Amino acid sequence: MSKFNVELKRVVDDSYEIEIGYDLKTSLANDVTGGIFGSIKKLAIITDTNVEKLYARDICKMLIDLGFSAELFVFEAGEKSKTREVKARLEDEMLSHAYRRDCAVIAVGGGVVTDLAGFLAGTFARGVPFINYATTLLAAADASVGGKTAVDTPLATNLIGLFNQPKKVYIDIASWKTLDKRQFSSGLSETIKHACLASSELFEYLENNINKILDNDKESCTHIANENCKIKYSVVMKDERESGLREVLNLGHTVGRAIETVSEYKLLHGEAVAIGLVAQARLSNRLGYMNDGEVERLIRLLESAGLPVSIPDYIDRDLLVKKLYTDKKVRNGQLRFVIQNGIGDIVCFGDNVYSTPIDECTAKEIIDIM
Amino acid sequence: MSKFNVELKRVVDDSYEIEIGYDLKTSLANDVTGGIFGSIKKLAIITDTNVEKLYARDICKMLIDLGFSAELFVFEAGEKSKTREVKARLEDEMLSHAYRRDCAVIAVGGGVVTDLAGFLAGTFARGVPFINYATTLLAAADASVGGKTAVDTPLATNLIGLFNQPKKVYIDIASWKTLDKRQFSSGLSETIKHACLASSELFEYLENNINKILDNDKESCTHIANENCKIKYSVVMKDERESGLREVLNLGHTVGRAIETVSEYKLLHGEAVAIGLVAQARLSNRLGYMNDGEVERLIRLLESAGLPVSIPDYIDRDLLVKKLYTDKKVRNGQLRFVIQNGIGDIVCFGDNVYSTPIDECTAKEIIDIM
Repeated sequence: MSKFNVELKRVVDDSYEIEIGYDLKTSLANDVTGGIFGSIKKLAIITDTNVEKLYARDICKMLIDLGFSAELFVFEAGEKSKTREVKARLEDEMLSHAYRRDCAVIAVGGGVVTDLAGFLAGTFARGVPFINYATTLLAAADASVGGKTAVDTPLATNLIGLFNQPKKVYIDIASWKTLDKRQFSSGLSETIKHACLASSELFEYLENNINKILDNDKESCTHIANENCKIKYSVVMKDERESGLREVLNLGHTVGRAIETVSEYKLLHGEAVAIGLVAQARLSNRLGYMNDGEVERLIRLLESAGLPVSIPDYIDRDLLVKKLYTDKKVRNGQLRFVIQNGIGDIVCFGDNVYSTPIDECTAKEIIDIM
Repeated sequence: MSKFNVELKRVVDDSYEIEIGYDLKTSLANDVTGGIFGSIKKLAIITDTNVEKLYARDICKMLIDLGFSAELFVFEAGEKSKTREVKARLEDEMLSHAYRRDCAVIAVGGGVVTDLAGFLAGTFARGVPFINYATTLLAAADASVGGKTAVDTPLATNLIGLFNQPKKVYIDIASWKTLDKRQFSSGLSETIKHACLASSELFEYLENNINKILDNDKESCTHIANENCKIKYSVVMKDERESGLREVLNLGHTVGRAIETVSEYKLLHGEAVAIGLVAQARLSNRLGYMNDGEVERLIRLLESAGLPVSIPDYIDRDLLVKKLYTDKKVRNGQLRFVIQNGIGDIVCFGDNVYSTPIDECTAKEIIDIM
C-alpha cells in the first residue's frame, strides 16, 4: 500500500466590480476592449427573446464593430426556459459555431438569463469567463451578488448549478423602464425584503420615494440598486456557502415559494414573496417581535409598490398548508421560518441560528387570517 | 453612476490523498466513518452496470451496515453513457430519492464513472463532496490527478464539464484483475505515455516487468500506479489550467484521437493512443530527437503490453489525414504535435512551448509508412 498527497492549496481571487448606472453599453464596450476577458476575441451573448430586440442585438453589433467575433444565442423568455435542456441546446449551438475554450460569455437580461448563462459559462470547456448585464430590478437585487447560478428540474428549483462569479456585473437602470409595471413591482419585492431584514433607513427611503422609483427616476433607482447590493453583499460575505447567516435571505420565501407553486405560477415570484413577507410579519407579530404598527407599515409599503398583501381567493389555503408541511425541509412536523425583528432586523435565535421551527397548526392559523 | 466592489479573495485548499493498494474497501469505510464527508450521512454511490456487481454493491452494503443511508445509482457501462442526458437521469433519480444539499457522492468504477460522477457532484446542489474509487488502470493513470471531469456531446468530447477535486482517490489494484485483457492493455498505454514523456526509469521498469504487470502482480502494479500519479502530478501541479506544460500529456493523442474516431471506436482509446505514440516517435525520429533504437524500444514495449503499433488495414489513411487537418486546432494548415525527446523527455521548442507545427504533407508521409 502506498499514499500520495496532491497539494492544492492556493489563493483564489474572484473579486469583481458591480457598476450601477443609466445605459452602460459604452462602459461594457470599454471593459471588453480594455481586456476584461484577457486576449479572448470570441464572445457568446446569451439572452432571451424579450431582451434580444431591446438590448442584446445592439450590444452584439457594437462588439462586432469593435473587431470582436460576437454572436447571439437566444432562448424563449420565461422561467420555464431555465432547464438543463435549454442549457444543452445553447451549448450545442455554441459548439456548432466553433466556440471552444477560448471564448467568453456575456449574459444580457434578467435573473433567468444570468442564472442560466452563468451556469453554462461555468461548465463550457470546464469554465470560461462571463459578465452579467442585468436588465431587470430582480436581477439587480438577486443575481448581482452571491455567484449562485442554476437551472430548474422537474423535481427541484435551482438545485442543479454552480457557485460561479462573474468578471463584472452591470446594472443598467435605463433598462428598467422597458419592464412592464407588474414585472417591475415584482422585482421591488426583493428590495423591500432586503430593507425588512437589514435596513430601516432603506425601508423609510422606499416609503418616501416609492412613486419616484415606480416612475424610473434615475437617482432613486440608483440608490435602491446600490442598497440592494450592499445588503446582499454584507450577508453573503459573512457566509459564502449558505450554512448560517445566508438563510436570512429566505425571509418571506418559505410561504412565498409554496404560494408561487400552488398558484401554478399565476403569481410572479416577487408577488408570492410579498405575500410571504406579510405572512412572516404576522407570525413575528404573534411571537412578539413586530408590533401592529410595524406590520401595517410593511403592508402599506408593499401595496404602494403595487404588490399583493393577502392570499388570492383562488388559492386553496388547506392545500397551501399541506404543501408547506410536506416540504423536504420539514423535520418532526416543524418547518423553520426566518422572522423579522421590527423593521430592518432579523431575530437571532441562538449562535448562528436565524430561523425558528413553527408547527403546522400555527402556520394554518396565520394563513387563515390572510 | 456608482460602483461597488465585491471582494472575493480567499485561500482555497483542495488538497487530497491518493491511496494505492490491494482491496481498499476497508480503508474507504474507515475514512467515511472517520468523517471524510463531515457530518453527511446520505451517500450516493454512482457506478456502471459492470462495476455494480463486482464492487459497488459490496461498498453500498458495507456503508449501510455502518449506519449510513447509501443507495446505488447505476448507468449502462461504456463511453456512450458519458452524456448530459445520463447525468440528468442520475440527478433526477437522486432528487426523487430525496437527495439534496446534504449528501456526498462516491464514484466506483473506471474513467467514465469518475468523469461523470465528479461532474455530477460538482453541480448537484451547487456542489457536494465526492470521492473516487478507481477500479481500472486507466482511471488510475488518468482520472486520479488533475480534477478534470466532463461529459461528451455530439459535437465535442470532454468539453462540457468542470475542474472539480475529489476528497480522496482510492486506486484498488485488486480490481484490475477483473478487467479483461484488452481493456487492461489499453490502460497500460497511458502509463507507457507517462514513461515516454517523463521517466526513462519507469520505461525500463516497464520493459523489465511487463509480464508481471499483465499478471496483476501486486508489487509491480503498485509501483506503476505510484509512478503514474507522480508524473501526472508533477505536470499538472506546474500548470493547473492547461495553458502550457499540461499540453505534454497530449503526447500521442493528436493522431490517437483521430484514429479512435476514424475507427468508429472499434479501437479502444488506449489502443489508438499506442498507435499515436508510434506516429509521434516516427516524427521525432525524422526531426532528429529519437534514434532508430529508441523508436524500436517503444514499439517493442507497446507490443509486449498487447497494444497495436501500426494503423489497422480497415482504416482509410487518406480519411485519417483529412480528419487530422480539418480539426479545430489546425491553424494556417499546420497542426501542433508534442514530440518525445529520446526516452523519458519531451522536446521544449521555446519558453513554455512544448509542441511544434507540422504540415499535412509531413503528417501524410508518416502515416503512410505506418
